[in-house]
Amino acid sequence: MKDETRRLEILRISDTGAVKERDLVVREAPVTIFLNDVDLVTLLCSPKDFEYLAVGFLFAEGLITGKKDIKRIFADNKDGVVWVETVDGKKPRDNILARRFITTGCGKGLSFMGSPKHMKDLKATSDSKIQAGRVALLMKEFQERSLIYRKTGGVHSAGLANARGIVAFNEDLGRHNAIDKILGECVLKGIKTDNLILMTSGRVSSDLLVKAARARIPVIVSRSAPTDLSVRLARDLGITLVGFARGSRMNVYSNERRIAAGPTTRRKARR
Amino acid sequence: MKDETRRLEILRISDTGAVKERDLVVREAPVTIFLNDVDLVTLLCSPKDFEYLAVGFLFAEGLITGKKDIKRIFADNKDGVVWVETVDGKKPRDNILARRFITTGCGKGLSFMGSPKHMKDLKATSDSKIQAGRVALLMKEFQERSLIYRKTGGVHSAGLANARGIVAFNEDLGRHNAIDKILGECVLKGIKTDNLILMTSGRVSSDLLVKAARARIPVIVSRSAPTDLSVRLARDLGITLVGFARGSRMNVYSNERRIAAGPTTRRKARR
Repeated sequence: MKDETRRLEILRISDTGAVKERDLVVREAPVTIFLNDVDLVTLLCSPKDFEYLAVGFLFAEGLITGKKDIKRIFADNKDGVVWVETVDGKKPRDNILARRFITTGCGKGLSFMGSPKHMKDLKATSDSKIQAGRVALLMKEFQERSLIYRKTGGVHSAGLANARGIVAFNEDLGRHNAIDKILGECVLKGIKTDNLILMTSGRVSSDLLVKAARARIPVIVSRSAPTDLSVRLARDLGITLVGFARGSRMNVYSNERRIAAGPTTRRKARR
Repeated sequence: MKDETRRLEILRISDTGAVKERDLVVREAPVTIFLNDVDLVTLLCSPKDFEYLAVGFLFAEGLITGKKDIKRIFADNKDGVVWVETVDGKKPRDNILARRFITTGCGKGLSFMGSPKHMKDLKATSDSKIQAGRVALLMKEFQERSLIYRKTGGVHSAGLANARGIVAFNEDLGRHNAIDKILGECVLKGIKTDNLILMTSGRVSSDLLVKAARARIPVIVSRSAPTDLSVRLARDLGITLVGFARGSRMNVYSNERRIAAGPTTRRKARR
């Protein structure tokens, strides 16, 4: 946690007056990803796990399909630079970022959006079911592991879980970075994600759905809200999208067949 | 609010079982900004106030300096396209997005970062002071106005205030978009911002500091956490940065001279 936080002198004001004291603040640092010697992108992130971030970013943006595409990877953690060399050695096209799609959520992201046709190839096919009560337990474990958030309030958490527990977890300033880091970890460690649950503390916007789809993740669980576009994509892509997972409560926005809850009733439609 | 939300059928799960019902979800839509006929960027945002967003984005990224630079602006709200024509008519350089700086916070953003030297020209010079109690009252007004957040949990709020109250306010899926929208409103309406307080519901990362600096805003107040880089920039740029403003409590991270609190004591440094 030392790398990810810093103690700064602040003035803390309350009803009882103002006190000068030292407080823990999250660190923010740039990391630049070179793909086959071409400067691809600079991300501002929590300065940790640069390799995971680089690999996850390339994977989630569709620039690599898995570990087999990576020939060499070298991270300079001090200067915040990661070099990735792929087996095919192809330089990223100049215009790879030409379709400058700045995505949102609670911030903005940059997403190399595939065509809708291509997206159809990314349909989640897993048939596995999970008990709603199990989702609640996973969310409890997720929050307990969000140590930097609990110390600083300044990061988002992301996790990948199966029904038994969390298999990958990370925290980062950026909602997208945190997800890229866990996807990168799975790519590098050869962990299959097509039967796992993606957990996030952040709001679910369409770009996050695209990331999950590339990893063939069948279920997304968020503590927070989805957008209408993310719900539409989740329905199209066969992904189960759960929002506002807090305690034993949760909202299922799509493909509810994977969530085993009690008997379902239909409430009279409200205006 | 009709444009910004949509009612969808969901499955709501709780201890008492599962209920199918209709729920309000925030809308997410792309808007593409053309600058002098060149496709500059596509943002995913709440589909409202596209003109404000486009002007605020161009201003906050340093591509225009004020209303005087704008010759014509036309927004197609249906198709999500905004054309901005500037007085100088200069096409944005091909490489204007070449330094692909994806910024973070709780998401990512794309920022046309100026050089540090240039940033020094953006120092906040305002001498005005505000009572801590007044900041708390502004935050209360800010939260009361965050209607879409209270209905959906899916947006961020941004506001500009003077000591008497809020003069510009907006909500958007994107933390950065919400700020761009209020800055754009100020540019178009000729509201001077160099003596105003920027209010945000979101975490304060370095890119947000850059936006505020371009508008010469002397005080930033957030409900949430800052990063160490944003604190450093705020100190360098003469900006007062207040975080965790909740009720009568708040943390002042930089240039505390502008916040009038009670008497200050120094607590023994903690390890």
